[in-house]
Amino acid sequence: MSQLPRFWNLGWSSFIDWWSSQSASEQDYVTTTGPSQPYGQQHLNEPLLDHREGQLFLTEAFKVILEEVLCKGTDVNEKVCEWREPEELATLLDLELREYGEQQYQLLQRVRDVAKYSVKTNHPRFFNQLFAGVDYHALTGRFLTEALNTSQYTYEVAPVFVLMEDEVLSKLRSLVGWAQGDGIFCPGGTMSNMYAMNLARYRAFPEVKLKGQWALPRLAVFTSQEGAVPFLVHATSGTTVQGAFDPLEPIADICDRQGLWMHVDAAWGGSVLFSKEHRHLMRGVERADSVTWNPHKMMLTGLQCSAILLKDTTDLLKRCHSADATYLFQQDKFYDMSLDTGDKSIQCGRKVDCLKLWLMWKAVGSQGLEERVDRAFAHTRYLVEKMMKREGFQLIGKPEFVNVCFWFIPPSLRGKENSPDYQDRLSKVAPVIKERMIKQGTMMVGYQPLGGRVNFFRMIVISPQLSYQDMTFFLDEIERLGNNL
Amino acid sequence: MSQLPRFWNLGWSSFIDWWSSQSASEQDYVTTTGPSQPYGQQHLNEPLLDHREGQLFLTEAFKVILEEVLCKGTDVNEKVCEWREPEELATLLDLELREYGEQQYQLLQRVRDVAKYSVKTNHPRFFNQLFAGVDYHALTGRFLTEALNTSQYTYEVAPVFVLMEDEVLSKLRSLVGWAQGDGIFCPGGTMSNMYAMNLARYRAFPEVKLKGQWALPRLAVFTSQEGAVPFLVHATSGTTVQGAFDPLEPIADICDRQGLWMHVDAAWGGSVLFSKEHRHLMRGVERADSVTWNPHKMMLTGLQCSAILLKDTTDLLKRCHSADATYLFQQDKFYDMSLDTGDKSIQCGRKVDCLKLWLMWKAVGSQGLEERVDRAFAHTRYLVEKMMKREGFQLIGKPEFVNVCFWFIPPSLRGKENSPDYQDRLSKVAPVIKERMIKQGTMMVGYQPLGGRVNFFRMIVISPQLSYQDMTFFLDEIERLGNNL
Repeated sequence: MSQLPRFWNLGWSSFIDWWSSQSASEQDYVTTTGPSQPYGQQHLNEPLLDHREGQLFLTEAFKVILEEVLCKGTDVNEKVCEWREPEELATLLDLELREYGEQQYQLLQRVRDVAKYSVKTNHPRFFNQLFAGVDYHALTGRFLTEALNTSQYTYEVAPVFVLMEDEVLSKLRSLVGWAQGDGIFCPGGTMSNMYAMNLARYRAFPEVKLKGQWALPRLAVFTSQEGAVPFLVHATSGTTVQGAFDPLEPIADICDRQGLWMHVDAAWGGSVLFSKEHRHLMRGVERADSVTWNPHKMMLTGLQCSAILLKDTTDLLKRCHSADATYLFQQDKFYDMSLDTGDKSIQCGRKVDCLKLWLMWKAVGSQGLEERVDRAFAHTRYLVEKMMKREGFQLIGKPEFVNVCFWFIPPSLRGKENSPDYQDRLSKVAPVIKERMIKQGTMMVGYQPLGGRVNFFRMIVISPQLSYQDMTFFLDEIERLGNNL
Repeated sequence: MSQLPRFWNLGWSSFIDWWSSQSASEQDYVTTTGPSQPYGQQHLNEPLLDHREGQLFLTEAFKVILEEVLCKGTDVNEKVCEWREPEELATLLDLELREYGEQQYQLLQRVRDVAKYSVKTNHPRFFNQLFAGVDYHALTGRFLTEALNTSQYTYEVAPVFVLMEDEVLSKLRSLVGWAQGDGIFCPGGTMSNMYAMNLARYRAFPEVKLKGQWALPRLAVFTSQEGAVPFLVHATSGTTVQGAFDPLEPIADICDRQGLWMHVDAAWGGSVLFSKEHRHLMRGVERADSVTWNPHKMMLTGLQCSAILLKDTTDLLKRCHSADATYLFQQDKFYDMSLDTGDKSIQCGRKVDCLKLWLMWKAVGSQGLEERVDRAFAHTRYLVEKMMKREGFQLIGKPEFVNVCFWFIPPSLRGKENSPDYQDRLSKVAPVIKERMIKQGTMMVGYQPLGGRVNFFRMIVISPQLSYQDMTFFLDEIERLGNNL
C-alpha cells in the first residue's frame, strides 16, 4: 500500500458533512418538490429534468455499485457468477420496456438485479477472458469520462482529452521504441488492426481513397504465390489462446527487403513492453510500421481502451482517413487546427478512452505497471510449477506469457491414452467442469479446442488481486469439479 | 417531476448511516494500514491491490464528479467551458506520465483539474454538437456498465446484457415498424453504417466473405451510369447540419423495383420515431432493410450508443460476420449457443452499450421519451418564432427538425447585401462570435460553411433541461457578442 495521503486526514466525517451541506434534508426535499405531476404536463418554460432528484438517485446507485459490484463482487467468499437459465433470468429481470416510467425505488432494485446476475469480472477467481480485475483509478477515470460525456474530435469540445491522448500515445510509442510517430485510440483491437490495413493499403495505393478498392490490383496480406500484390505482413505478439509471440526480427528483415508494411497485433501481448525483464518477447517491435495494443486487457483499464500506434511521421493517418467535415473541422478557428485530431479517425463521434489509462498510470507510475506485468509472469510460473507436481494436469506447451493451457485428465482416463475413445472422452471433460463451476459460481476459466487438440483449459493470470492461494484454489477446484468424471 | 418514491423516505440520514457502517473511521484506517511500503516490495502471496483504499478514492472522486461535473457543470451561473490556450492547459494539467506513482490527494486534484478544464456538455448552454444534457438514469447505467466491465460476446460472461440488448433492439425495431428482425449495438454511427454496407454486399455477393472484394464486380452505392453494379441506396433521416429528412417512400419504391438494399442513416433523426406527432418525417422507414440509430445523440444516453437495426430474419448478420472463434463460441456449451450473439459483430471484445438506454427507458417509459422529442420540437419552434422577430437573424430554411441554421448579421452589415465584400465579411462573423463565447465561457454553438453558403450558425435544441429562458438567453447572447462586429 502506498503512503497514507494527507488528504485522508480530512477523514470520513468531513465527507458526511459535505454531503449534508450539499443536500437537502428529507423535509426540504418533500416540501420543495410539491405534489407530483404527470410527466407530460409540464410547461415548456420549466426544465423537464430535476437535477437534485437525479443526483440523489445516482448517489443511491453508487452505493449499490460499491456494495454489490466492488465489495461483494471482489470477495472470494462470494460467487463469481449467479447462473440462471435464460428464460428464468429474463423473468427475474423483467426486461420489457413499457409506455410509462417506474418509481425510483423500483429502478434502484433494477440496478441491484443487474449487478446481482452479472458475471463478476473483478472477482479474483475470474480467469475466463483476457481481462480481469479492477483498478480503482482506472475506474475513476471511467466514471469521470462518462459524467463529462464528450466526443474526442476537436480541441474545442475535448481540450483536456486531445492533449491527454497525445501524451498517452506518445508514452506508449516510446515503449515500442519510437521517438516520434502517430496513433489514435480505437473502439477495440479489431478496429485498430483494421486501421493498420487501411494505412498500409493507402500508403501503397493512395488512389484507393478516391477510387475505391476496385481501382487497385488484387491485394494480399503476406506474400502470395498467386501473383497478387502483397502489402502487409501481420505479426502477432500474444496469441489469444496460447499467448505465443511471433519472432519479430526475421519478419522485419523480410518486410525491409520487400518494402512491406509490418503490423504487429500486440492487443494482448503489448503490455510486456512495460517490463524490462519480459520485453524481449517483442524484440524488434520498433522496426514495425504499426502496433495494436489494448490496455483494456492486461492493464485493467476496462473496456474499451485500444491504441493503434504508428511509426509514420508524414501524417498518413490523417491523409488516409480525413473527410474534412466542415461542421467539425472549420479552417478558420482561432486556435491551431492540428489539435482537432478527430479527422484521423474513421469515426465521427469517438468515445474518450485515454483518461482511464492516464489516471491509472499517474497513480502507479511506469514502475507500478511494470510490477503488475512481472507479478503476473511470476504467478504464472508458480502455477505451472504446482500444476506439474499434480497428477492429472497435462500442460500444452510451456507458457511464453500468462496463458496456461492444459488438459485435466480425470482419474478414470489416466493411463488410457491409447484407448480408441480417449480423445473423445477427454474432449467432454472441460465442458462438464465448466458447467459445474458456472452453476456453483466458484470460478470461471475458458476452454476451447484448437488445431488437432480436443477441448483444453486456458487459464489467464493477470489480476493484481491474485496471490499464491488463488493458484492453489484453482488447481484444487479443477480437481474437485472433475475428479468423478 | 415524477412522484416522490417511497424509497426516499428512508432519507438522507440513512445514507450517512450506511456509509458510516460500511467504512472504517479515520482512526481505523490509520491503524489498519500500517507503515507504507515501496510499491514493488510486496510479496507475491499478497494481493497488490487494496480494495478499501481504492474504494475510498473512488468515493472521494465521486463527490468531485457530483460537485464539479453534475452540480456546477449544469448550473447556468457557471461557465460552459474554461478556455485555455493548449500550451497553458498542458502545463496546468501536468500531463507527463512518469516512473513513479502519485499520492491520492494529488490524484484527486487531477480529477478536479480534468473536470474543471473539460467542456461541460451537460450544461444547459451547450448547443455545440448533436448531443447535450444529462440523464441521470442513463448515467447510472453507464457507471454500472463500467463497474461490471464485461464484454458483450457470450451469454456466459454477459448473461444480463445479452438478454437486455435483445429487448432494447426489439423495441427499437418495433418503433421502425418491424415485428421481427435483427440488429446489434456498434461503437458509433460510422460503424453501424459500415455494417449496413457489409451486409448489403454480402447479400448480393456471399463469396465476398471468402474471396474478398477482388472477386466481385465493381460495386456502387446508388445507381451509377458507368456500368458498375449498384447494391445499396443510402438515405438519411436527419442530416448533420440542417437536420433534413430524405423522402423514404419514393426511395423505397426504387429499391423495391431494382432489388437494392435500402439503408437509412437515422443516427441523428431516428429519435423522431418515439413521437406520434413527428414520426411522419420518417414515413416509409419500415420498408428499409437497415436503419442506423444513435440514442447517444438526441436521447441523452451518453457516448457511445448506436444501433444497427435489420429487417432480415435469415441470420444474415451472423452469416456475414461470424468468425467462429473456438475460444469464445464453443459448440458444446451447456446452454443455447444462439445466445452468444458476439459472433454477429466484427469486433471481438465489445463494450456494453444497452444498459444505459434500458435503464433510462425503464425510468421514463416510451411516453417520457416521446415527451422529450416533442418538447425539443416545441422549443425549436419557439426559438424560430422569436428569432424571426429580431433584426439581424436570418434563417437558412425552415427547420424540419431541431437544427436551427442561421446567419447573424451585425448592424454594420445590415442592408449591405449587395456590396461586393458582403459575403466575405459575413463569413468572418460566426468565427469571431464563437471565439468570444468560448473565451468567456457563456455558451457553445457550432458554425460551418456549407455548399455555397458562408459560415452560419447551427443551433441544436435537445436537452430536457432547456426552457424558454434559455432560448431568449441564446438570442440575447449572440447579439451581445456580435453587435459591434
